[in-house]
Amino acid sequence: MDLPFPALWLRDNCPCPLCLDPGSGQKLHTVADLDAELTVTEVRDGADGTVAVAYSDGHRSAFDRDWLAAHEAVDEAGDGRTEAGKALWDHVEPPAAAWEEFRADPAPLLRHVWKTGFALVRAAPVEPGTVLAIARTFGYVRETNYGELFDVRVEPDPANLAFTGRAIAPHTDNPYRDPVPTMQLLHCLRDAADGGGESGLVDGFRAAALLRETHPGHFRMLSGTPVTFAWGRLRAQRPMIGVDEAGRIREIRYNNRSLRPLAGREDELAAFYAAYRAFDALLNRPGAMVTFKLAPGDCVIFDNTRVLHARTAFADGAGAGDRHLQGCYADLDAVQWITS
Amino acid sequence: MDLPFPALWLRDNCPCPLCLDPGSGQKLHTVADLDAELTVTEVRDGADGTVAVAYSDGHRSAFDRDWLAAHEAVDEAGDGRTEAGKALWDHVEPPAAAWEEFRADPAPLLRHVWKTGFALVRAAPVEPGTVLAIARTFGYVRETNYGELFDVRVEPDPANLAFTGRAIAPHTDNPYRDPVPTMQLLHCLRDAADGGGESGLVDGFRAAALLRETHPGHFRMLSGTPVTFAWGRLRAQRPMIGVDEAGRIREIRYNNRSLRPLAGREDELAAFYAAYRAFDALLNRPGAMVTFKLAPGDCVIFDNTRVLHARTAFADGAGAGDRHLQGCYADLDAVQWITS
Repeated sequence: MDLPFPALWLRDNCPCPLCLDPGSGQKLHTVADLDAELTVTEVRDGADGTVAVAYSDGHRSAFDRDWLAAHEAVDEAGDGRTEAGKALWDHVEPPAAAWEEFRADPAPLLRHVWKTGFALVRAAPVEPGTVLAIARTFGYVRETNYGELFDVRVEPDPANLAFTGRAIAPHTDNPYRDPVPTMQLLHCLRDAADGGGESGLVDGFRAAALLRETHPGHFRMLSGTPVTFAWGRLRAQRPMIGVDEAGRIREIRYNNRSLRPLAGREDELAAFYAAYRAFDALLNRPGAMVTFKLAPGDCVIFDNTRVLHARTAFADGAGAGDRHLQGCYADLDAVQWITS
Repeated sequence: MDLPFPALWLRDNCPCPLCLDPGSGQKLHTVADLDAELTVTEVRDGADGTVAVAYSDGHRSAFDRDWLAAHEAVDEAGDGRTEAGKALWDHVEPPAAAWEEFRADPAPLLRHVWKTGFALVRAAPVEPGTVLAIARTFGYVRETNYGELFDVRVEPDPANLAFTGRAIAPHTDNPYRDPVPTMQLLHCLRDAADGGGESGLVDGFRAAALLRETHPGHFRMLSGTPVTFAWGRLRAQRPMIGVDEAGRIREIRYNNRSLRPLAGREDELAAFYAAYRAFDALLNRPGAMVTFKLAPGDCVIFDNTRVLHARTAFADGAGAGDRHLQGCYADLDAVQWITS
């Protein structure tokens, strides 16, 4: 009887309590502790669907047969963070839950954040700081130079264009930071009385997948070219479309405001701009944006590595409304913990 | 007169106050706002080393000539996060500063954290929670499921092997999390009376660069194969050696305890194990580890995306010392902010 696994693989993955700590599930040896010349000396069927393996170093393992079979081919879903683990959309009805329902059990709504990329919590308290309380129902706030939370409203001397009444094109936040905050929450304290300041979200993975379908050369350019994003003293050089080693879309960084000049040869720069414009056109294609208005108390939670956010312009000044959101950053590991 | 840049590149990077917000330094237009058929209609030398450019859309730019020249070739240093921005080492004297000196100006020591990958703060207060105060002199604590801080000492029912008296082989923390915490701090409250519990650090970038030199096939295997790290419900699938789009080493994830079985064909698995063992041998090569003992009050700060940490075993129990460290995570963006 022969198993389609190398001896070292089997020995390294032995599930016995001498190899795998029963309390923590952690491996108790390193790969260097194993004999490089190790061979399998015996394989036979054991009881209850197990396979018994003996090695030249005298150790013995009992593997579950189904578990072994599951490792003969790569699991295409991966860790759930790439396009393979997501539900990509052109249009989607915003997943939503009332605050009391969410607070009692955040997992159902957070499954939408994980798969769809965003969700809305409706009618949370209209109190400053509520955005932190919402984040802390399931995760940990990622504090940055913007503070634990940041106020999104018109400021007299804005350090960031978010703090003006301007329309903001679809973008991800903080691409100049590495690691970027992988989640963002925006909670509405006051809406704009003039009717502006609508929120919009776009699925960046979907737009990148469309680019790959329609313009594979452009996709290769954007996924293969590190570009510099900078703000203040922060600076990160990463591609607009981040793919993993298997070519799966894993991270979108997109922010015209903080993109810094790409350096290179004239023909490369021209090819980059063609790709950049094509991706921008897909991100802004008709129907790509899901729009909604946050009422006071509402909070949108989204995956900042995938979903781009935007807002329409709103007038500033006394007579024209006084939109005020509070935002904070958090990370997706907390969502993975709660929903898996 | 001709400039070696496409018209769109020039127009998109115009530094005038209509294009670049003087307050925030952020770009005020998107790439879609620019005419796809744009041409340069005139280029001429301006005053003070500037170059004046006129475009078919009527806009005019004044570029600094040296700034333009600097963008004709890619800046190899990138954002300072890859091997190109680091000082790789086989052995290095631990950079250190006294707590009072560090507190007055953390930038000099943090430059070592950025370039060398680690540094020691000596003789900080021997008070629980000091590790958070040290992190907050320059940055933001990354809270996780382990808390804002975690105690590293022998625990009766350890959720992690760090909380035992075992020797721990060189590893990076939390490879099962994405993003990983990019920095770690470990502050000593009590050392092990039996003389064990020494700390050791290894330059993972150096070991990866050695692997590339000596076994390029192994390097391609480890940088091209996503492997699964898992702990509890957390799970990330990333390569042990992360490289950027230009092939530069950017991130090491290495932790035998949380590595999960790789799936695949038998020949691929065998090739992976050969590469994994070779990398492990380089990480554990004689002389690769810088060792030191943390005295009560001392704190080591290191780049968790590059430098692996390890400790020798120490006996647990009443008569054998009672080593107690407190650790916390933080992120490198704060170091970049302070030192750039």
